[in-house]
Amino acid sequence: MLELRKEVSMGIKEIAKEAGVSVATVSRVLNGTKFVSEDLKQQVLACIEKEGYVANHVARSMVLKKTFTIGLIIPEVSELYHQMVFSQAEHVLEEAGYKVLVCRVKDTVSSVRVYLDLLLENRVDGMLLMHETSNPKVYDQLKKSQIPIVLAGIDIPDLPFPQVRIDDFQASYDGTNYLLSLGKKHIALIGGWGYSVGDKRLQGYKTALEEAGLSFDPALVVPGNYTVESGSEAMERLLASKKTFDSVFVLSDEMAIGVMRTALDAGLRIPQDLSVLGFDGIALSRFLNPTLATVSQPIIQIGVQSATHLLTLLQGEKVAPVTLLAHRIQTGDSVG
Amino acid sequence: MLELRKEVSMGIKEIAKEAGVSVATVSRVLNGTKFVSEDLKQQVLACIEKEGYVANHVARSMVLKKTFTIGLIIPEVSELYHQMVFSQAEHVLEEAGYKVLVCRVKDTVSSVRVYLDLLLENRVDGMLLMHETSNPKVYDQLKKSQIPIVLAGIDIPDLPFPQVRIDDFQASYDGTNYLLSLGKKHIALIGGWGYSVGDKRLQGYKTALEEAGLSFDPALVVPGNYTVESGSEAMERLLASKKTFDSVFVLSDEMAIGVMRTALDAGLRIPQDLSVLGFDGIALSRFLNPTLATVSQPIIQIGVQSATHLLTLLQGEKVAPVTLLAHRIQTGDSVG
Repeated sequence: MLELRKEVSMGIKEIAKEAGVSVATVSRVLNGTKFVSEDLKQQVLACIEKEGYVANHVARSMVLKKTFTIGLIIPEVSELYHQMVFSQAEHVLEEAGYKVLVCRVKDTVSSVRVYLDLLLENRVDGMLLMHETSNPKVYDQLKKSQIPIVLAGIDIPDLPFPQVRIDDFQASYDGTNYLLSLGKKHIALIGGWGYSVGDKRLQGYKTALEEAGLSFDPALVVPGNYTVESGSEAMERLLASKKTFDSVFVLSDEMAIGVMRTALDAGLRIPQDLSVLGFDGIALSRFLNPTLATVSQPIIQIGVQSATHLLTLLQGEKVAPVTLLAHRIQTGDSVG
Repeated sequence: MLELRKEVSMGIKEIAKEAGVSVATVSRVLNGTKFVSEDLKQQVLACIEKEGYVANHVARSMVLKKTFTIGLIIPEVSELYHQMVFSQAEHVLEEAGYKVLVCRVKDTVSSVRVYLDLLLENRVDGMLLMHETSNPKVYDQLKKSQIPIVLAGIDIPDLPFPQVRIDDFQASYDGTNYLLSLGKKHIALIGGWGYSVGDKRLQGYKTALEEAGLSFDPALVVPGNYTVESGSEAMERLLASKKTFDSVFVLSDEMAIGVMRTALDAGLRIPQDLSVLGFDGIALSRFLNPTLATVSQPIIQIGVQSATHLLTLLQGEKVAPVTLLAHRIQTGDSVG
């Protein structure tokens, strides 16, 4: 207790000196008791603002019961997509006076749990969650938290928090139909399964094939973990399978970069021999060679809307449980 | 004060109940006084470990005077390079039982200051700094901090903290000489100036040209802010200048991606009409089309070594003021 008491007392003394009031008056303001006039309170709070960061932080947090900090949990894969969403969200939150702490988590239960603990320990006012885990214990902990949480770009049915995302089934269905409309008959699929968004995208692909009267071939569906390297490896597996395929639908642009490199190295021309369709619509997609056709998520809006929802929740108001934003097909030279 | 006292007291009561000791005993352990036997202290600490996160965090921090958290400050540009360094550093720190909080800062004074405040408020045990700012006030604050700090991949002469980096003058000098050795006579340069690392790279380029008996043409030196987009814009400026150039040395791989796209769109063949040499050696460089030749930083070692140095400092030991790691030329199809 010694540590904390000393630190806060130091802050109070400095504030009292600067505000020209007694330590008792500052203490009364910090404790929120009603025996201080509004003028005097404002005078003290103004000095708190001018004081050093420790006093400022501790005192302001105590008076307002806020830390003015938002925690953001992102997975360590698919970096460029998450960076883009995060940049937009951060901008909105900073404009509103919040600071953002980021935790990049690995896809392991312990990693997710450690970082949730960390953010909650530091008493963030709210959280943006962009990472899905399969461990129910982590979700139990989140459900018990008293702070506003918004799911950005993910869909976790178990959690009672507002979601801001696209319709992943429909987006994958539309992407597959785009390739079918160009006459592709053998469409390979690379992505990650076993979680909500990935499974919905797999279902969208299957449904589109079924409606087109094409049979679903499990050998053309290859897992990837959303890194460039895993896209390259998935493409190597497809090539080694000796299966016929005229196009690959890759469920992240970063994996698509690896897919294209491996296809080019195998002597395939893109798109003459193989069409490659990505997913996400990261800024880099337009700078690749060939430029990448992709199912484009409204990345800016996902970031802005999820942050705006979080600010609304922080003001004690409600938001829609699910906000669906529109995806679109971004054309590019990788599909033809 | 009420808030803090209440919160800590709640933790203490729970711990006392679980440990089967009095609140006074727990309080004595937390205050670090010597009137508690080692057995009883261990019993209390074991219960603290089992308790909820708030009690755990506050109590453990108080007893050990540590937060087991490292702050990491990275700029929001040149994302892939910083992500790679950070991933390596994070791995080393996590293995040692530390958690990592990331702040991505914009290149504005207020942004850097806000995030430094944030990390120090949360009382991190140490910091890895990967961002350079031109504001001396920020550095004054850093100098006053009592925690270990390591500069990873940057060089700020004003700060008395250990540096882990390459020799940026030599790396740029070697990159320029690599292009000269292939017969290039008109080498354009794209990068950011006005800070230590950038200026040293500019000097390395100038020195190599001078030693080769070539004149330095300021019109061939174009600024870029290390994003893909800025590389594209810098290349547009070079093309619009109507100057003759047979190669471009681009001081980040991400900018080089933008440079190559704009060159291809202008009908230039790479490397037949234009050689493009990058800087950093990010993983993506090998997956681009053409594959990118680049001055490769030892990214893994920078991350591992800076984290290892930080752990050494956290144990109260000393490390070398400057640890220079070796760069190398990574060949690729973009230069020929």
